Amino acid sequence: MSLPIGVLISGRGSNLQKLIQTCVPADFPAHIKLVIANRPDAAGLQMAAKAGIATAIIDHRKYGSRTEFEDAMSATLRNAGVEFICLAGFMRLLSAGFVEEWQGKLINIHPSLLPAFKGLATHDQALMAGVKLHGCTVHYVSAKMDAGAIIGQAAVPVLHDDTPQSLATRVLEAEHRLYPACLEAIIRGEIRFEHGKVVSPASLRRENEKLLNF
Amino acid sequence: MSLPIGVLISGRGSNLQKLIQTCVPADFPAHIKLVIANRPDAAGLQMAAKAGIATAIIDHRKYGSRTEFEDAMSATLRNAGVEFICLAGFMRLLSAGFVEEWQGKLINIHPSLLPAFKGLATHDQALMAGVKLHGCTVHYVSAKMDAGAIIGQAAVPVLHDDTPQSLATRVLEAEHRLYPACLEAIIRGEIRFEHGKVVSPASLRRENEKLLNF
Repeated sequence: MSLPIGVLISGRGSNLQKLIQTCVPADFPAHIKLVIANRPDAAGLQMAAKAGIATAIIDHRKYGSRTEFEDAMSATLRNAGVEFICLAGFMRLLSAGFVEEWQGKLINIHPSLLPAFKGLATHDQALMAGVKLHGCTVHYVSAKMDAGAIIGQAAVPVLHDDTPQSLATRVLEAEHRLYPACLEAIIRGEIRFEHGKVVSPASLRRENEKLLNF
Repeated sequence: MSLPIGVLISGRGSNLQKLIQTCVPADFPAHIKLVIANRPDAAGLQMAAKAGIATAIIDHRKYGSRTEFEDAMSATLRNAGVEFICLAGFMRLLSAGFVEEWQGKLINIHPSLLPAFKGLATHDQALMAGVKLHGCTVHYVSAKMDAGAIIGQAAVPVLHDDTPQSLATRVLEAEHRLYPACLEAIIRGEIRFEHGKVVSPASLRRENEKLLNF
């Protein structure tokens, strides 16, 4: 059994590329069914097409309201048979209606150790705060920005000569390990979303759990 | 040259014990000159006395104001020849006067990855927030609680069956590695406090820096 997933992007989607690679082996329990971009020029669209994955452009500027835009996305995802959504650099806030419709089936990766540094420019925020550890977080999406239940986190060192760019590069390497690990843990039932919280059944093995916090 | 340090405690001071061990080797560039407790029953007093370290009790309840209490501590520290202060479970907030007097020479360890989870009961806070990484932070002390410039941070995993106690035990192990490493980096001049920020001279070697964020 292979779970059909949809990926929402706004730009190049480096995490999309990693998810595509992750799903290549036939024994991986998911495959990417559809990639949707809210911008016609999103570079990730070419990347997906090159990998033989169906793509769609749903341009938010062509819809009168956020709800209409999100309804169009939901309909397109359902028509394609998508059962689970990964955000990969998707730059639109999602409203409560969409989030509830896909509750427990909608995850995102954020480039900070939440709850620290929500929002944009997280690497600048981290350097300004002078932290020595920074990282990334995979979480279920809630209607409150970057505040959904946390699935996994990975830390990287901040070095004294770091720029926002050098730090972003280091965090991105961690993102590319963490996002597939979290996706796989969900699909294999090792973690679950219940009543707004992430729960792990007793069957979760320690060695697997350690992939979710490194 | 060996830097004479003072340690302020309120209770058992498990970090005090670790600092005592750290300073035992003759080539370690610091020695503990004095341990001050603000409570007569602080268990760390016996620990220090057993290691042959001078102790003092400066009971905050015997002073009419915070300033008088802090002036008494400063005088006692200076009389003992202390040049650098480590807080180890010292449970009194320090006012701006004391902090400025010891600016750049006063550090603390806090059981969270700051800026997340300031204040008390940090392990409960972390479990409530559902983070998958937690840890500890060594920082210069500022008059704003748990907000001083960060020297080093260490992360530990949060496991699905953790209690505040099991999590505290894991964080404490990290504290016992991080605090001595940060103290040593300061004494060796590998990091400095300048204009409210932690700066690292170009001479700081990567392998040393990595001890400050693990």
